[in-house]
Amino acid sequence: MKRVISVRKRALAANDERAGSLRERFAAAGTLVVNLISSPGSGKTSLLEATVRRLDPGLRCAVLEGDVATQRDAERIRAAGAPAHQILTGGACHLDARQIVTGLEEAGFTDLDILFIENVGNLICPTSYDLGEDFKVALLSVTEGDDKPFKYPAIFSRAEVTVVTKIDLLAHVAFDLPAVEEQVRTLNPSARIVRTSATTGEGIDRWCSLLTERLRAKGAATA
Amino acid sequence: MKRVISVRKRALAANDERAGSLRERFAAAGTLVVNLISSPGSGKTSLLEATVRRLDPGLRCAVLEGDVATQRDAERIRAAGAPAHQILTGGACHLDARQIVTGLEEAGFTDLDILFIENVGNLICPTSYDLGEDFKVALLSVTEGDDKPFKYPAIFSRAEVTVVTKIDLLAHVAFDLPAVEEQVRTLNPSARIVRTSATTGEGIDRWCSLLTERLRAKGAATA
Repeated sequence: MKRVISVRKRALAANDERAGSLRERFAAAGTLVVNLISSPGSGKTSLLEATVRRLDPGLRCAVLEGDVATQRDAERIRAAGAPAHQILTGGACHLDARQIVTGLEEAGFTDLDILFIENVGNLICPTSYDLGEDFKVALLSVTEGDDKPFKYPAIFSRAEVTVVTKIDLLAHVAFDLPAVEEQVRTLNPSARIVRTSATTGEGIDRWCSLLTERLRAKGAATA
Repeated sequence: MKRVISVRKRALAANDERAGSLRERFAAAGTLVVNLISSPGSGKTSLLEATVRRLDPGLRCAVLEGDVATQRDAERIRAAGAPAHQILTGGACHLDARQIVTGLEEAGFTDLDILFIENVGNLICPTSYDLGEDFKVALLSVTEGDDKPFKYPAIFSRAEVTVVTKIDLLAHVAFDLPAVEEQVRTLNPSARIVRTSATTGEGIDRWCSLLTERLRAKGAATA
């Protein structure tokens, strides 16, 4: 067990180093990088489809898609109008910085304003792997139950933004939204919480404003 | 990387050995053991609450609950009327056979007909860890999207039973149920598929019959 932990520690340290280089590269290019993390089926791809459709068309954005299997998510993003590249992890439960380096080489994206990284559907493993992002976003759909932030505290502590998705279904499920927001704020007092529905479009403008604000702030910081 | 893989291989081999001993022990005791695996929020605990309420009261059943954090699921099961013991994984993304051994010691369950193991909410990592169960059950809620079996093929290939949950919400979401069942059968031609709603009770009788059938078959095989 001790052996497993020390090997994992070394793997994480090597990942952190690669992520640091990626972060410098993204800063030099002025690219805002957003790492989206959630359970399978919380609506990461749906949020990204709505986002690429709604963002200022003057902004160049692209998506790196992480999945165990299938090209489906990258196809959905391309159909929504943005370049996308699928990274298949071959069974691994999270993306790592090495896969981002390789994925970017293969994708050949150029001059991006925003790079979205959709992590593998998993609320636990992706949390520890820095991908050189500016910030992590945790998604939680109202159909998943209102106990999730306290049950998966690591990701909700580290995500600067929590997006509560599928709020169009709120009338049909038992989900105490204020209690969830309270849990998120307990874990991370500075968290920003956005309520969205990719189906009705609710909250998508607010989410897009948050992205463009962060992009401007990054541009100002690195100018 | 090679080093990480070989350490993981050894950890899995050690786990398989412990799981083998657990399986012998469960066979000697005539206990049917069911390992439930799904994304966070697919409704594992809700299915188990409905199950312990509906099963023949002459059957002695209990639940080992696996979570990263909180005692909440064990509390819910006890409130539904069955003994339950919470295993906290301390951040690990799956249960392993060692935790089942320790959990059973701590729980002190006796003379069980059915032991349910609710794994950590995660559609990937728990798949590789044998817990000495008779069979794995994969749960998929209709709110998670109808692309999930092909996106997470390992668990849907190995689960003898797939439970499609929250079918009361089918009218409110885009979810092609026949397409999902087709994906499951492509991955595992002998899979049994049960459609349930813990809210309306639909399918719970069928699920409970499947459990009692399997319990009888196990009794006949070991008699």
